[in-house]
Amino acid sequence: MSGVTGSGPEVFGSSGGRILPVGKSVTVEVPASSANLGPGFDALGVALGLYDSITVTIIESGLELEVTGEGAGEVPEDASHLVAKAVEAGLRAGGVGAPGVRIACHNAIPHSRGLGSSASAAVGGLVAANGLMDSVLTTDHLVQLSSEFEGHPDNAAASVLGGVVVSWTERSATGVTYRAVRMDVDPSIVATVLVPSETSSTAQTRGLLPASVPHEDAAFNASRAALMSVALGSRPEFLPAATEDRLHQSYRAPALKATTRWITRLRERGLAATVSGAGPTVLVLGTSRLPDDLRDLAESEGWRALDLQIADGAQVVSTD
Amino acid sequence: MSGVTGSGPEVFGSSGGRILPVGKSVTVEVPASSANLGPGFDALGVALGLYDSITVTIIESGLELEVTGEGAGEVPEDASHLVAKAVEAGLRAGGVGAPGVRIACHNAIPHSRGLGSSASAAVGGLVAANGLMDSVLTTDHLVQLSSEFEGHPDNAAASVLGGVVVSWTERSATGVTYRAVRMDVDPSIVATVLVPSETSSTAQTRGLLPASVPHEDAAFNASRAALMSVALGSRPEFLPAATEDRLHQSYRAPALKATTRWITRLRERGLAATVSGAGPTVLVLGTSRLPDDLRDLAESEGWRALDLQIADGAQVVSTD
Repeated sequence: MSGVTGSGPEVFGSSGGRILPVGKSVTVEVPASSANLGPGFDALGVALGLYDSITVTIIESGLELEVTGEGAGEVPEDASHLVAKAVEAGLRAGGVGAPGVRIACHNAIPHSRGLGSSASAAVGGLVAANGLMDSVLTTDHLVQLSSEFEGHPDNAAASVLGGVVVSWTERSATGVTYRAVRMDVDPSIVATVLVPSETSSTAQTRGLLPASVPHEDAAFNASRAALMSVALGSRPEFLPAATEDRLHQSYRAPALKATTRWITRLRERGLAATVSGAGPTVLVLGTSRLPDDLRDLAESEGWRALDLQIADGAQVVSTD
Repeated sequence: MSGVTGSGPEVFGSSGGRILPVGKSVTVEVPASSANLGPGFDALGVALGLYDSITVTIIESGLELEVTGEGAGEVPEDASHLVAKAVEAGLRAGGVGAPGVRIACHNAIPHSRGLGSSASAAVGGLVAANGLMDSVLTTDHLVQLSSEFEGHPDNAAASVLGGVVVSWTERSATGVTYRAVRMDVDPSIVATVLVPSETSSTAQTRGLLPASVPHEDAAFNASRAALMSVALGSRPEFLPAATEDRLHQSYRAPALKATTRWITRLRERGLAATVSGAGPTVLVLGTSRLPDDLRDLAESEGWRALDLQIADGAQVVSTD
């Protein structure tokens, strides 16, 4: 555990509009997420049952931050901390001020592994702010504000809405609107993630994508993305075919050698394995736990194998 | 109406295996189809409530063909006729012979308009053959055999399975397997097609497609194809967004000027209009009939506007 005390950003201590009372507090649980799911590059996302817990309490002045678990001591613990920025953005969007704020983050979502930890931080902060404001922001607002932090909606929308989401971006003269809708998912479907000890840089792997792709590969992914909705909804036997992809994974493979080796190994066993987001975590979707021999092998190679439920979206779990 | 009498292909008059008795007869109704639906290039297809009727009767020898309605006098009326070839392929797949066959086609599906008439002919012939053989072929067989006629499964699978289908092609050392699955569709969704008097050549419009496309356009279509399943299944309000496409329609627009003008006009009214297959027909998916002013305008320009139900797959409607 580590903690700092600093001066808060503008909205903390704001005297404009409604001011939240000292002592008011909310605790939020926000799920991890995995993006792409194979064919749905920057479009599909799933919320996973691995949660960061964030408690935000109104205090007399300033900003106090406390981070335990994943990321403790590694992320900035001042107003530039993502959760603090998200709490501030949420209060600002609701037209509400606070004299000061204490934020306690108990993190279980590994950072820089392709499990959407930064999206979860943004969503968690926004949902906490919304809880303090008696939920004046709609889920559409929350999708928009959290996606603005990310620049794309796939992880953020999954952590807001829960389940599996399709997201997309609408650009107009008035700006960028992030849209997302949750789809029906067969309750028998569960996820396993294989999390390596090494981290990955999304910026670096994104740079490996080509400017253009063969037309037939584009059509290939469109077919698999359409199939994915059907496989997830009611036909999980099609998950291996539905998770095929030609738009990102092969291009990033040189930077994700161990990940790629594991995906090949799992798919040869008939399992619907994909790179989680930009990696290096591996996501497996199916209707049963990972077979024990594969789990043992992964753990012997230093990977953590976690069986996770498809989660609901971020929720306020207690208020004071 | 026109008719010819000729010698049949090998399987008609075959003495190998089980031989169907003279006088046995089956009548099949097979729906039209529309492919692509915007983002699902070569992948999505929908069966439409506009039917060809095909009656196949076992006769003592030879092949007799009779075609009324669409295509009468324009399609070959001998063993090279697509329905005759499909009946033959179906009987061969079932290991059944016939001394001779009379085929009567009463066609309502316009030809060369992007409404899948050739796929419907193949499906109709195969389903008729299957009806004569007491349905020994599964729907998977029928999807495979009919798609082999076409070289792609989107229209054929829709006419076999009915509803909206996602189809894809699996290539292996042992050959090409065409796969398709029907998805759930909100019963409130109906289709309107605008059919021009001019025909179109699929081969010509297919030649207008580029070898490669921007990566972001490929990702765009994958997101819309995933959204399409959700929109069709339960969220028809998303149909306009879900039918957006960057893989084929803009490239073919120069060869489809009137079609493109109509799609622009309809989409500006908030309607989910796309090119039906390779055109020139326009498909509109939504929850209400085409507004009267647009219908009147289309008809004044020489288009036929047809409101159609999403149809079930080809069915045997009578047997003797």
